[in-house]
Amino acid sequence: MRVVGDIDEFALIARATRFLGGLSAAGNVLLGGGDDAAVLGLPPDTAAVLTQDALLEGVHFRRDWSAPADVGWKSLAVNVSDLGAMGARPLAATVSLALPPDLPLTWVDRFYAGLDECSRRYGCPVVGGDTVRSPAGIAVSIAALGSVVPGRHLMRGGAARGDLVCVTGVLGQSAAGMACLAAGRGATGVAATPVARHRRPQPPVEAGALLAAAGIASAMMDLSDGLGSDLRRLCEASDVGAQIEMLRLPISDDTRRLAARLGANPMEWALHGGEDFELLFTVPPGRWAEVPPLLASLGVSATIIGRTGGRGVRVLDEAGHGQPLRPRGFAHFAPE
Amino acid sequence: MRVVGDIDEFALIARATRFLGGLSAAGNVLLGGGDDAAVLGLPPDTAAVLTQDALLEGVHFRRDWSAPADVGWKSLAVNVSDLGAMGARPLAATVSLALPPDLPLTWVDRFYAGLDECSRRYGCPVVGGDTVRSPAGIAVSIAALGSVVPGRHLMRGGAARGDLVCVTGVLGQSAAGMACLAAGRGATGVAATPVARHRRPQPPVEAGALLAAAGIASAMMDLSDGLGSDLRRLCEASDVGAQIEMLRLPISDDTRRLAARLGANPMEWALHGGEDFELLFTVPPGRWAEVPPLLASLGVSATIIGRTGGRGVRVLDEAGHGQPLRPRGFAHFAPE
Repeated sequence: MRVVGDIDEFALIARATRFLGGLSAAGNVLLGGGDDAAVLGLPPDTAAVLTQDALLEGVHFRRDWSAPADVGWKSLAVNVSDLGAMGARPLAATVSLALPPDLPLTWVDRFYAGLDECSRRYGCPVVGGDTVRSPAGIAVSIAALGSVVPGRHLMRGGAARGDLVCVTGVLGQSAAGMACLAAGRGATGVAATPVARHRRPQPPVEAGALLAAAGIASAMMDLSDGLGSDLRRLCEASDVGAQIEMLRLPISDDTRRLAARLGANPMEWALHGGEDFELLFTVPPGRWAEVPPLLASLGVSATIIGRTGGRGVRVLDEAGHGQPLRPRGFAHFAPE
Repeated sequence: MRVVGDIDEFALIARATRFLGGLSAAGNVLLGGGDDAAVLGLPPDTAAVLTQDALLEGVHFRRDWSAPADVGWKSLAVNVSDLGAMGARPLAATVSLALPPDLPLTWVDRFYAGLDECSRRYGCPVVGGDTVRSPAGIAVSIAALGSVVPGRHLMRGGAARGDLVCVTGVLGQSAAGMACLAAGRGATGVAATPVARHRRPQPPVEAGALLAAAGIASAMMDLSDGLGSDLRRLCEASDVGAQIEMLRLPISDDTRRLAARLGANPMEWALHGGEDFELLFTVPPGRWAEVPPLLASLGVSATIIGRTGGRGVRVLDEAGHGQPLRPRGFAHFAPE
């Protein structure tokens, strides 16, 4: 079996080019990979949106749990999710790969194949980056560039007192999928969708862009660390409190059934599971009626889960008792 | 001594924000760090230029050889160098940091201080990114965004037969500095400038932007791996040969003296040392006269080192004998 250390850097870059050239002829790419940098034309009257996020072996994924194509998909998906959360549309991405010399070349090829699939799904061509030898473990860092109408970008800090707190899609699905894998269960039946979503998040990037362009939402971010952590961040940035209701949290039937089988609490997954990569946003009550039809055109659902106001972030449980919502999401440097 | 593992991710990000907020109020930054992504306004009628490059501990730097502030400086400098090589002006950058838990927090603070210095030098504010735990070793990946007038960007593939082959500044200086450090010599006297340039490369980014805007150069790239590797790439991309003359290579007196002391060949450093981060560019002979006065306004020198034409890439030695110029630059996956 050939490994990364068997070929030189240029041969490795040539392999990447074979997989990633697909969208480089896209309209916005004035110059794709292979030079010192890529040149991208922004749509008229837009500003650039830039984000960067890394995935590390042993921290964000394990080689024995995640197929290389899924790591490739996810490493771009988490970045386009950040673009969507600003209300931006993806333009292009660059990828920085650090690879250990003993890594099989088939792993690298499959990683690129998954990256390319995600790139095509979101219309976000990979136009450059670099590949270096890693002393230990795989490290992927992707930067994504998007465009947004200036002044229409949506921040975390825009929520006003009395706004509705909303989310797209369903919550806790990725956590359900991960719990299923951790328990050694198969990925069929009710586990199929949760496991698939855990492996390949599907951030509703176009929904974010539509909400921003229509000027409906007042604040927005993506749900990466769990509602408990992320809603707190949105509230702190907006200087408001919020109360959400457990009974309103959108949880799929598959997630509920998996929770019952595994003896887990689906509410915990929905509140603290993380990695859903859905949108968390706030809307003035008078604008809510516009949201469902707008997002329905994309096949994306939206749910009101609470309202801003009061002090701190609170959650009403099934019995109607309020309690503080504390973050229990993933923090990389916290004691384990 | 406090280490990275002692504080949580949010505290670490807060430390970064203290160091890197300086330029976020710059005119092009519509929204700086702290949200899902940054928003940047491009100057009117420009296209975006995007590049990304990583620096890994044990591959690109050693903690016992490089001060943390120098690693911070260099990790941004290599990226703005790529922007300059396209003829672009820097707009903003994001940084992805992977840090081992046992790393002293003072290392991180000093890294940010050096990054901030480079950011100010090149007017390239750091507007986002992420910080994650690393299982082994420090990994830095930076993405830099710039702007260029569409159609004025300079590629590697634009050289025509008969163009002059030129470089900015002096060559072999970084290799001289590294050789000095490797030999355990001090960084004073004739070693001062070479060692300083090795530690903190000073890519002539503005010179690249001026050459591009004036439409003088036909092809351009930055010298990162050494002239032997990089001129070959430019020639292959342009589908031309080239011949350069050793006696024309700009080598500083300090570099020559250091070579004499260390028993090294300064020509080898100039041809194959790498990491000079000067510009390699080609100019039609009729346009050369414009180059020195244009770059002199920035305090940057330029030297004709040869001419495109013929087959392959050749070098005339001091005795006037031609020989093929073979790459001996740094290739990450090559056998060691």
